Amino acid sequence: MPLLNALDTLIEALKRLPGVGQKSAQRMAYHLLQHDRTAMPRLADALTAASEGIRHCERCHTFSEAPICGVCADTERDGRLLCVVETPADQAALERTGSYRGYYFVLLGRLSPLDGVSTREIGAAELLVRASEAGVGEVILATSFTAEGEATAHVLAEALRVRGIKSTRLARGVPVGSELEYVDLGTIAHALTDRR
Amino acid sequence: MPLLNALDTLIEALKRLPGVGQKSAQRMAYHLLQHDRTAMPRLADALTAASEGIRHCERCHTFSEAPICGVCADTERDGRLLCVVETPADQAALERTGSYRGYYFVLLGRLSPLDGVSTREIGAAELLVRASEAGVGEVILATSFTAEGEATAHVLAEALRVRGIKSTRLARGVPVGSELEYVDLGTIAHALTDRR
Ligand SMILES: [Zn+2]
Ligand SMILES: [Zn+2]
Repeated sequence: MPLLNALDTLIEALKRLPGVGQKSAQRMAYHLLQHDRTAMPRLADALTAASEGIRHCERCHTFSEAPICGVCADTERDGRLLCVVETPADQAALERTGSYRGYYFVLLGRLSPLDGVSTREIGAAELLVRASEAGVGEVILATSFTAEGEATAHVLAEALRVRGIKSTRLARGVPVGSELEYVDLGTIAHALTDRR
Repeated sequence: MPLLNALDTLIEALKRLPGVGQKSAQRMAYHLLQHDRTAMPRLADALTAASEGIRHCERCHTFSEAPICGVCADTERDGRLLCVVETPADQAALERTGSYRGYYFVLLGRLSPLDGVSTREIGAAELLVRASEAGVGEVILATSFTAEGEATAHVLAEALRVRGIKSTRLARGVPVGSELEYVDLGTIAHALTDRR
């Protein structure tokens, strides 16, 4: 007889998901067992396939099942542009805009010295090698507009500048569709500074 | 090449969990892949074990890995009491109080004619057979104090009464530790009616 029964083991495993505490995990387990049995093997299979099949693209570091991801393998894109993002989710968001046709480099994090995330963890050296390739004309630093994202962009911009590589930053400004009245003052100040 | 890649398949499978939409599923998948790879086979194994190992107790219908659950198999409990609850979670809550030593019957739902949940789905016939066993002196109807839970209790109480079986209902009242000022009026009214 195992120490934990199958139900408690399932609840404990579900609690490893971000944002899922004891109550949600219990509710999820009961829901699956009582109302959606077919979802259980399906999720188990998806977890196994993802765990075994998903690695990082050797070129841009995003999640990929192939050694080189689909974007990096696409020779039709604009090789002069290299966009640096923090996460595959950020890359996916940029792709969804349909307005960027260059390549990417995914840091898989941002500098956070207090959490032990240094330039090594975010692959800064690999980024510099990639950015130094012939043909790259501009590195767009699309890290978040948070303190850590800004610090990351600053450090990378400096390292690129030393190597004679031009870098830019996404424009800060008022979100499309917002009324000025409801936009926070810092954003309005930045929109004024970055005005076109 | 599959229609969906491993990442999208994982996100779709996570969306089957209750309360998990596109954004949370994406966040969960990225978190697992980037920060908690070991949680993935663990959750996959727990899902498979639960899916294959957990059935319903033949006697009380709660989740059980054995044909008869631990509570039903415990001959030390008080056979005169049979407590009817809606879900295994409700049963677990009652067990945690440590103040009930009888047996249970788990409906796995409550009457909801609009959703097609009839007396058959909640095992009313099996409950009546179980409650008619020699030695059962009182059936405690511990369904929720919601409209559907009350209707379920009412229907079951009537069916038990016809068969000459006594049923009771949990007391409605002011939660322990509450100040009257903050308790809703309906609860106070019930607490007055059910005053001891
Ligand atoms: Zn790539
Ligand atoms: Zn049982």
